[in-house]
Amino acid sequence: MLTAEIIAVGSELLTPFRTDTNSLWLTDKLNGVGIEVKLKTIVGDDDARLEETIRDALKRSGVVVLTGGLGPTEDDITRKIAARALGRRLSLDEKVLEEIRAKFLHWGRKMPEINARQAMVVEGAEVLPNPNGTAPGMYVEHDSRVVVLLPGPPREMKPMFESHVLAKLSERAGQVRVARRVLRVAGMGESAVDERIAPVYTQYKNPQTTILFNNTEIEIHLTAQGKTEQEAELLLDGLAGQIEERLGDAIFAFRGETMEEVVGLRLAVGGFTLAVAESCTGGLVAHRLTEIPGSSNYFMEGVVTYSNEAKTRLVGVPAELIERHGAVSAEVAEAMAEGVKRRAATDFGLSVTGVAGPGGGTIEKPVGLVYISLADDAHTEHRRLMLPGDRHLIRWRASQAALDLLRRRLI
Amino acid sequence: MLTAEIIAVGSELLTPFRTDTNSLWLTDKLNGVGIEVKLKTIVGDDDARLEETIRDALKRSGVVVLTGGLGPTEDDITRKIAARALGRRLSLDEKVLEEIRAKFLHWGRKMPEINARQAMVVEGAEVLPNPNGTAPGMYVEHDSRVVVLLPGPPREMKPMFESHVLAKLSERAGQVRVARRVLRVAGMGESAVDERIAPVYTQYKNPQTTILFNNTEIEIHLTAQGKTEQEAELLLDGLAGQIEERLGDAIFAFRGETMEEVVGLRLAVGGFTLAVAESCTGGLVAHRLTEIPGSSNYFMEGVVTYSNEAKTRLVGVPAELIERHGAVSAEVAEAMAEGVKRRAATDFGLSVTGVAGPGGGTIEKPVGLVYISLADDAHTEHRRLMLPGDRHLIRWRASQAALDLLRRRLI
Repeated sequence: MLTAEIIAVGSELLTPFRTDTNSLWLTDKLNGVGIEVKLKTIVGDDDARLEETIRDALKRSGVVVLTGGLGPTEDDITRKIAARALGRRLSLDEKVLEEIRAKFLHWGRKMPEINARQAMVVEGAEVLPNPNGTAPGMYVEHDSRVVVLLPGPPREMKPMFESHVLAKLSERAGQVRVARRVLRVAGMGESAVDERIAPVYTQYKNPQTTILFNNTEIEIHLTAQGKTEQEAELLLDGLAGQIEERLGDAIFAFRGETMEEVVGLRLAVGGFTLAVAESCTGGLVAHRLTEIPGSSNYFMEGVVTYSNEAKTRLVGVPAELIERHGAVSAEVAEAMAEGVKRRAATDFGLSVTGVAGPGGGTIEKPVGLVYISLADDAHTEHRRLMLPGDRHLIRWRASQAALDLLRRRLI
Repeated sequence: MLTAEIIAVGSELLTPFRTDTNSLWLTDKLNGVGIEVKLKTIVGDDDARLEETIRDALKRSGVVVLTGGLGPTEDDITRKIAARALGRRLSLDEKVLEEIRAKFLHWGRKMPEINARQAMVVEGAEVLPNPNGTAPGMYVEHDSRVVVLLPGPPREMKPMFESHVLAKLSERAGQVRVARRVLRVAGMGESAVDERIAPVYTQYKNPQTTILFNNTEIEIHLTAQGKTEQEAELLLDGLAGQIEERLGDAIFAFRGETMEEVVGLRLAVGGFTLAVAESCTGGLVAHRLTEIPGSSNYFMEGVVTYSNEAKTRLVGVPAELIERHGAVSAEVAEAMAEGVKRRAATDFGLSVTGVAGPGGGTIEKPVGLVYISLADDAHTEHRRLMLPGDRHLIRWRASQAALDLLRRRLI
């Protein structure tokens, strides 16, 4: 398998504030054409270290992708150092210079002389056009290696890579195509998921299976290699089908969709409408649902009834019900779901009430206790949850469980 | 200045799904005691590449910090390869082995034999205890260098580094202390901020100033070096004061606080209460406010009036007002703010209505048009905004502007 390494250049990437996100995107694209990423380096605007990093990379890897450091200032050293590491000359390319000048002219400005530096090209490199900026990229074949220079800003880097680099690298990589799929799971723990599906996925080296737990959701990543995309996809279909047999409804997405996308699609397809009453989630359920374009077709209204008085006035929860059972109770959750559904005249009413912490917990009703409820014309149900985590996580998990309750009803 | 490099070990960090977050935290801590991070590498579970990476690092840097690869499986190669790169023996430490056995016993389990591997110690290393896991860390002084081996999981790595590594490195770094401050700005563009404060901050090499724009907010990061913390803080005070003179109220946080923290604190201190009516932000304003612990003391209720009917029923916006001016209008925004304030009987009513897109825009009311309004007992005001970005960004920026309107009233 052809191997690659990625070098991100820029002193700002060595501060605690910035992380290199380009390399994740590049890894995905490289993997997709069957190229494995074996190393990533982040190096500052430091001539000696960058040169050493490039030289080391060339010893090990078939493809070396550099991002960043193609700007017009003294600090932008990638062009100069890449040429030095390759033992090639760097010289002004008049044609590239004219193109940069023309760009500035088009913007109604004169090219600052400093930008002429961006027309310096490594001897023998193919120049890669940059429709979204002034810095062209470069593609250099060197012995049996390839070195690619890309600009740092993602909106310049990504289209350049896709239009001018990917096809060439794909050809170099030969007959390997990689397909990927992300299954998302709700309502089960990581070890429970692994226990059920390990007997299936451990039988295969291809597809490869990775279970990721990001604090809030479990994702099952499947990666398959084939001679064609179809072959790889077929392998994925086979394993995904077996995993579905084991997990059933707990899988809410087969293509990486979010919970709110899945729920929104089902509501839209069914022509249903929804209203939401939230206490401890404080608007998060409504916020997630309305992140989806077109959600105004099914999401009618939400209320955040933080105070008890608001629970009574906005969704008609009887004050004595709150007094008898407490605001965090199955009874109040159901009354909230029914009340918001009735007042908004929707097909479904969904509610959440709980103790998100860090304060407000008692022995009977500790931090993490959450009730969710769903009402439709026929009946009302609720779930009692004990959610681990801090305030932020408890709120997120409660919103996920509420949306999942609705999803299962909509199946 | 003492320099460091960070090596993150683990093949999962070379997939498109995982990013190395440990190094940001470590960079912050190392910078804090005056150590500069000059290079970061991410390497898979690959003996030869890891050995080469460590050897290269030792040639360049005074401190080499490795994270990950200390688990009990075959894939966990950091111990073995670090010993090899340092030319030191790796041998079983009976005392460490006993401690690991005791941990399992404490959990009511027998130690799996595989975990004995975690008791292998590099010759001459100081063993660093791990209260949150089984893998101990190691601290090795080698010639004039230091090599530190830390576990990968942040909840094991961070306390270990803080308790057992930071003080030693701080001493090595000598008399340099670094202090940092983050100022956050609302309601101004990046270039407007830079134009106003560049004449001030460019006069100083210490503190150093970096302006970061994360798509939604502008942050001004100040970093100062001094012989003592006090000296560094004093330098920060001086520059922060000058920047405040130039930006005034536009700075909403001087210590990195979020907008909802600042607004929440001001509401709590003033003993004020708030209710929120949202249309296009769909619950985001309520969600952000209620992320803050204790927000139930000032946040009374929120309504997400997505449909016109809900605007009338829930906050009393006259139907004819919506018909005459449209749901996205200054008039409706003000009626929403006044209505939610009146019904919830709070000190403030805050509202948002707009076109978040991608659909729903017209020539008169394009995507990005947002009205925000704030009502108190004395008067009601509104702002008309034209916000750039996609649906997600428009919603976020609208929520930020609404919270900022309230913040300015509370000053």
